[in-house]
Amino acid sequence: MKQYLEIYRKNLFESVIPFWEKNSVDSEYGGYYTCLDEIGRVYDDSKFVWLQARQVWMFAKLYNTVEKKAAWLEMAAHGMQFLKKSARLPDGRVCFSLDREGQPKSIQRKMFSECFFLIALTEMYRATGEDHYREEAIGLFKLIEEFINKPELLGRPILPGNRAVRSLAIPMIYLNLLEELEGLLDEKDLRNRRSQAISEVLSHYDPDLGLFRENLDEEGIFDDLPEGRLINPGHSIEACWFLLHAAQIEGLPDVQASALESLIGSLEFGWDSEADGIYYFMDAKGNPPRQLECNMKLWWPHTEAMYALVLAYSLKKDRLFEEWHSKIHNYAFDRFVDEEHGEWFGYCDRYGNHTHQLKGGDYKGCFHVPRALLYSIRVLEQL
Amino acid sequence: MKQYLEIYRKNLFESVIPFWEKNSVDSEYGGYYTCLDEIGRVYDDSKFVWLQARQVWMFAKLYNTVEKKAAWLEMAAHGMQFLKKSARLPDGRVCFSLDREGQPKSIQRKMFSECFFLIALTEMYRATGEDHYREEAIGLFKLIEEFINKPELLGRPILPGNRAVRSLAIPMIYLNLLEELEGLLDEKDLRNRRSQAISEVLSHYDPDLGLFRENLDEEGIFDDLPEGRLINPGHSIEACWFLLHAAQIEGLPDVQASALESLIGSLEFGWDSEADGIYYFMDAKGNPPRQLECNMKLWWPHTEAMYALVLAYSLKKDRLFEEWHSKIHNYAFDRFVDEEHGEWFGYCDRYGNHTHQLKGGDYKGCFHVPRALLYSIRVLEQL
Repeated sequence: MKQYLEIYRKNLFESVIPFWEKNSVDSEYGGYYTCLDEIGRVYDDSKFVWLQARQVWMFAKLYNTVEKKAAWLEMAAHGMQFLKKSARLPDGRVCFSLDREGQPKSIQRKMFSECFFLIALTEMYRATGEDHYREEAIGLFKLIEEFINKPELLGRPILPGNRAVRSLAIPMIYLNLLEELEGLLDEKDLRNRRSQAISEVLSHYDPDLGLFRENLDEEGIFDDLPEGRLINPGHSIEACWFLLHAAQIEGLPDVQASALESLIGSLEFGWDSEADGIYYFMDAKGNPPRQLECNMKLWWPHTEAMYALVLAYSLKKDRLFEEWHSKIHNYAFDRFVDEEHGEWFGYCDRYGNHTHQLKGGDYKGCFHVPRALLYSIRVLEQL
Repeated sequence: MKQYLEIYRKNLFESVIPFWEKNSVDSEYGGYYTCLDEIGRVYDDSKFVWLQARQVWMFAKLYNTVEKKAAWLEMAAHGMQFLKKSARLPDGRVCFSLDREGQPKSIQRKMFSECFFLIALTEMYRATGEDHYREEAIGLFKLIEEFINKPELLGRPILPGNRAVRSLAIPMIYLNLLEELEGLLDEKDLRNRRSQAISEVLSHYDPDLGLFRENLDEEGIFDDLPEGRLINPGHSIEACWFLLHAAQIEGLPDVQASALESLIGSLEFGWDSEADGIYYFMDAKGNPPRQLECNMKLWWPHTEAMYALVLAYSLKKDRLFEEWHSKIHNYAFDRFVDEEHGEWFGYCDRYGNHTHQLKGGDYKGCFHVPRALLYSIRVLEQL
């Protein structure tokens, strides 16, 4: 596994991070451009809040954990300043997208903009010690918990025919928030919440398929509707390493074992044995999924698998993890990594042809790639 | 062109209509199954209101214009009974999807469910003469006009940074509603409204590209954002034949000429000269579109082009229309038509491989294929 350390360092520090440093700063209106084409040219100056916040998180994380480089903190502060000024509506909700100047463009009936803004705030708090970041993060956390408890506050009508009432995304992201809030919340509160979130993620586990289902109804797994049969292998894989982190923090070997089992289950189910790569969406019973893009290969399930497998290997030294890691690594570096212009492409069709000549867009920014590389480096250094 | 008459008759009456007659009826809870796989097996018993209403429209249209077959009227009435019982919420809004029994599952912040329910009602009124259908259609039409005038009533917040304020879909579908309301509304009202809707559709015309843009801002065409650059060639093509019908009804040779020009412009821009087929979404300037499924080939842009070209040829006898028709027809019959199990497949990747082995889903039902075939037959019979 050790051969990968240099590859990942080189990719992160000489290709990925420089790509964003060079191309993403809007020095006139603030914030970052994230819609960047193959060579880094801006093709859309909208500011997507998920990606603004995630880039703040990323650069603050580099500053906090790799090296106290002033340029990294400056980059994070540049995005944070824009978010502080423009991300929230008067009612406290966090927008999904803003125009270049920061005027609100759209808001989702979901709480993920709030979640990503929160992790930007916690990391900036760690970087600067400025208390207003911590305070705003805690305020947002309370708002997010309100949304989890009363989803109707998000504005989507709760209708009696809809059975997909429990989504994997919620406890998963919540588990990640708790990790990011470490040291900012009362220890006991954090542990209680983490324990509940772990149970909720695990309740999505399907023992027959060996992975996590996206949607449950009140009774649990249901198979008679596409919502119930929906599998997002990348999500299931990402949930595994969120669980591995939580198991590490709390010292829970059973949770670790479940996560490692689900990781292999997700890879086995999600891997396209004919054309290679991890599918985006699948149906548990092999029916046609609703999503038109279901059989596409996206960069992020591969980055999440890459890191999850590095972590899994570091914990168990099992050859199975090593073999899967090599398969995923080779696919990702073959199809997504751009040695010429930096960063990764994001979107391939089933057969690995690029469908979009872009490095960033409305959902791809400076996040999954550098996070997976940084976290993998951290683990590989300890090996 | 005449060779196609028999092909279309055979496809419509021996393959497409029988597929729905045989597989779509839910005789227990009412309404239609539309999620049918390759061989017609139900893989999702949700009832999507767009498709329920469109199938009612289709069978009532066959009954009204082809032959007074009791089975066709019965099929239409079967769906209408379910819609009458379950489609609307107490506030009058029409749901997007219902569960098998008719419980509301989801509602869109768009008015298209209302529009398709309306055309089901008008066609049932023509079939039966029962006045309650006409009355409900006119009530819905008023509601739709309210939504058009005050889009905030649909529940999507109007935010100042969003410039894509005029969508082609609105005047296009409105033009189609007016066609379906012929004889049910006051003649003068209808003509005034039609004239305004024609102008609005034409305001989307981009003379440089020769086709209709999806979104305009207050000033018209804008090119600095993906919303403004968005091209949906199938939409642009469908708008052309809506305009051709309106031009025919009102006797407007200039509108006819514009529509014919846009039709060719849309085809030239939308055709994939490398891999064949009409793209789903494009960017006017060649940037990466936001939609992951942008380079896929869907059945409906091809059915709409097929009929638009038959109609165009009947009006002008120009070889250009004949040549394009043959190209589209061959692509569609090669990639989408299933001679073995009936109906058409719906979704191919850029290279024409089926991505979904289905005949119906949440957006594909008994509508675009049989409508294009029926309308083409009607025109070819007059040739």
